[in-house]
Amino acid sequence: MKAEILSIGTELLHGKIVDTNAAYLAEKLNECGFDLQSHLAVGDSRDLLVWALKVAAERSDLIVITGGLGPTRDDITRQTLAEFCGVPLELHEPSLAHIRELFARRRIHMPENNKIQAMIPRGATVIPNPNGTAAGFALMNGKTEMISMPGVPSEMKAMFEGWVLPHLAERTGRKGVKITRLLNAYGISESLVDEKIHHLMAPDRNPNVGTMVHDGIISVRINAAGDTSAEASKRLDATEAEIRDILGDVIFGTDSEDVEHAVARLLKERGLTVAVAESCTGGLVAHKLTNVPRISEFFLEGVVAYSNAAKTRLLGVPEALFSTVGAVSAEAASAMADGVRQRSGSDVAVGVTGIAGPTGGTPQKPVGLVFIAVSTRRATEAKEFRFAGPRTMIKDRSAKAALNMLRLALAGCGAP
Amino acid sequence: MKAEILSIGTELLHGKIVDTNAAYLAEKLNECGFDLQSHLAVGDSRDLLVWALKVAAERSDLIVITGGLGPTRDDITRQTLAEFCGVPLELHEPSLAHIRELFARRRIHMPENNKIQAMIPRGATVIPNPNGTAAGFALMNGKTEMISMPGVPSEMKAMFEGWVLPHLAERTGRKGVKITRLLNAYGISESLVDEKIHHLMAPDRNPNVGTMVHDGIISVRINAAGDTSAEASKRLDATEAEIRDILGDVIFGTDSEDVEHAVARLLKERGLTVAVAESCTGGLVAHKLTNVPRISEFFLEGVVAYSNAAKTRLLGVPEALFSTVGAVSAEAASAMADGVRQRSGSDVAVGVTGIAGPTGGTPQKPVGLVFIAVSTRRATEAKEFRFAGPRTMIKDRSAKAALNMLRLALAGCGAP
Repeated sequence: MKAEILSIGTELLHGKIVDTNAAYLAEKLNECGFDLQSHLAVGDSRDLLVWALKVAAERSDLIVITGGLGPTRDDITRQTLAEFCGVPLELHEPSLAHIRELFARRRIHMPENNKIQAMIPRGATVIPNPNGTAAGFALMNGKTEMISMPGVPSEMKAMFEGWVLPHLAERTGRKGVKITRLLNAYGISESLVDEKIHHLMAPDRNPNVGTMVHDGIISVRINAAGDTSAEASKRLDATEAEIRDILGDVIFGTDSEDVEHAVARLLKERGLTVAVAESCTGGLVAHKLTNVPRISEFFLEGVVAYSNAAKTRLLGVPEALFSTVGAVSAEAASAMADGVRQRSGSDVAVGVTGIAGPTGGTPQKPVGLVFIAVSTRRATEAKEFRFAGPRTMIKDRSAKAALNMLRLALAGCGAP
Repeated sequence: MKAEILSIGTELLHGKIVDTNAAYLAEKLNECGFDLQSHLAVGDSRDLLVWALKVAAERSDLIVITGGLGPTRDDITRQTLAEFCGVPLELHEPSLAHIRELFARRRIHMPENNKIQAMIPRGATVIPNPNGTAAGFALMNGKTEMISMPGVPSEMKAMFEGWVLPHLAERTGRKGVKITRLLNAYGISESLVDEKIHHLMAPDRNPNVGTMVHDGIISVRINAAGDTSAEASKRLDATEAEIRDILGDVIFGTDSEDVEHAVARLLKERGLTVAVAESCTGGLVAHKLTNVPRISEFFLEGVVAYSNAAKTRLLGVPEALFSTVGAVSAEAASAMADGVRQRSGSDVAVGVTGIAGPTGGTPQKPVGLVFIAVSTRRATEAKEFRFAGPRTMIKDRSAKAALNMLRLALAGCGAP
């Protein structure tokens, strides 16, 4: 089965926006067994959209379309698709009710032009949009199915996973089963992972094994194929066990799990509480931790102490320390972690201090120098790191390293 | 003059890679005055590449192609382009010398298969690649010029800026110039923006105006065309002024600016300091603010007070408040903002409390209910918000709303 991805939006052709939807859809459609022919992006123009639909429909069984379902005048996907398929648009009452409810919940008046977002080509099946106002739809045109969703990534993804994915699985009725799992690792380089598991990475091996890097996390990808889901699972599990044996505790989680999820799981398993003291990460460690649902049971507080005065007042870091070893030091990180742990009464705590740049570096303490300390009731351990890249990348890598130190400390301590 | 962008590479259709070249080229081609028709991505397949060249060449004067110029077996752009244009490949000696030199400089033996990277279709002009081994080339096919460059962004950009840009300027005689600007707004719905500036959004108007939404931010896109860059600028500025007049202070910045950049700019302009007290946003407001370089001059501290005990100890929120109006209330948000402002000694402060979900909601206080307060030396103002979506989205929208309230308060106060 052949498929195409079609992105609609003049902004995509002006270079201010990088289209991330296409990469997401490409991965998902490949997983569903579709043979992806092309990704096409055109502006909000009737003629170009008709051209794109025509060239894409010529050879493919499926066209997944994103964008152009907004309420404004330049959004023309809905109308053009209906016209291309030779059917009128009709009001879909449940979608209109959903739009009204979204506005009511946010206590804002619904402008009249939002009504268009509940209009659906006759004969199409509605794809519900839990995160937004634009209804999507699926429509057959000859042998080609056209699936239209909004371009807002959070809306599109929820619709794809909630409706499109099960729908495609049913439609393809796939005989062979393919399962993918990612094993996520931190604190090791991709080339070292490659060296250690090279013997499992032959191109035609089943399960097939590869590596990828994203935002400082190394993921080992395992693709297992089988006639049944049980068979594929069994193969995948065996390869996963082998890789875990080799790589050990650098693996912190699977699939979309991030280091903070591993930390939250360990806190829960061990019944421990945590607090965070940050300087250069500026709240990012706390933000990542509080992205995990129900973390409020284990996360007590975070302090972002940018100024030295705040480090002393909020965390009890001795003032003398700033004039001797300085605020960017192992001692300061330790004092921050100890301070927030003792004051909050938490079982464990982490302290982060460093220079995120682009200014503020010196030859002795360059941009990217970061100290991280983990404090438990038993001991406090500090480590020095050197990160490269722009400010936001140094913040991100520092926060990941802090969470990883927290994870390893939690894994090591059976009880507080 | 019409143009197309064509990206070649099987990896682009497997979703592990986001194609950033297309956004870069789109912006540059628009600036050169080209009317970009589509962006097309296909895998390293002869048939698909021929198809893409055919549909793109049908209507356009220029096709900019990236990818598929590597030395390996799956790189087929060079051969397929020559075949499509009906000319043979010929060795380009200076390019081969350049490749040999690059290998010699890195003290590695040059594999035989790298020679193919110096082969050029007969009649083509070579585009030098200062950063890599693959030579690019420009080739006329009928009225369409085909420009082929490697997909590695650093190589492609150097080649585009060093050779393609001057070449296109000469070819077009720089008669047309196009400029794009985004005006970013917060605190208004896309449909309301549309209602207010609908009269400026006619499809064939110059400047052309459209709207788009990304992560809760509404952007008004203005594209202005002119014979000279001064003429296009003048037109763009006039339309921008008109839109700013209509939309007023919901516009906080341009192009890639976020709300935190507007806040940082106002803090700097007015010489004021800020502190942050967060509950449901869990550090995200502080994180966003500290993404701005040099914010350390204006940002004093942030407190993430998840537990009630932390709200009282760190921010001075009266305990009695929790049993009367509750921790999720306008009163609590105000007490948090006042507390962090007074204790840190900052000029302004923001407090955020709410229910990010997915659990913890009640019929009276549902998931998505958020109170935000801004405290200045003159007054404290609190507002109630209702956000929808998953936990991370509620955190993001709450943080943006908090920064926006901060922005409006800062814009309003001439002096602290």
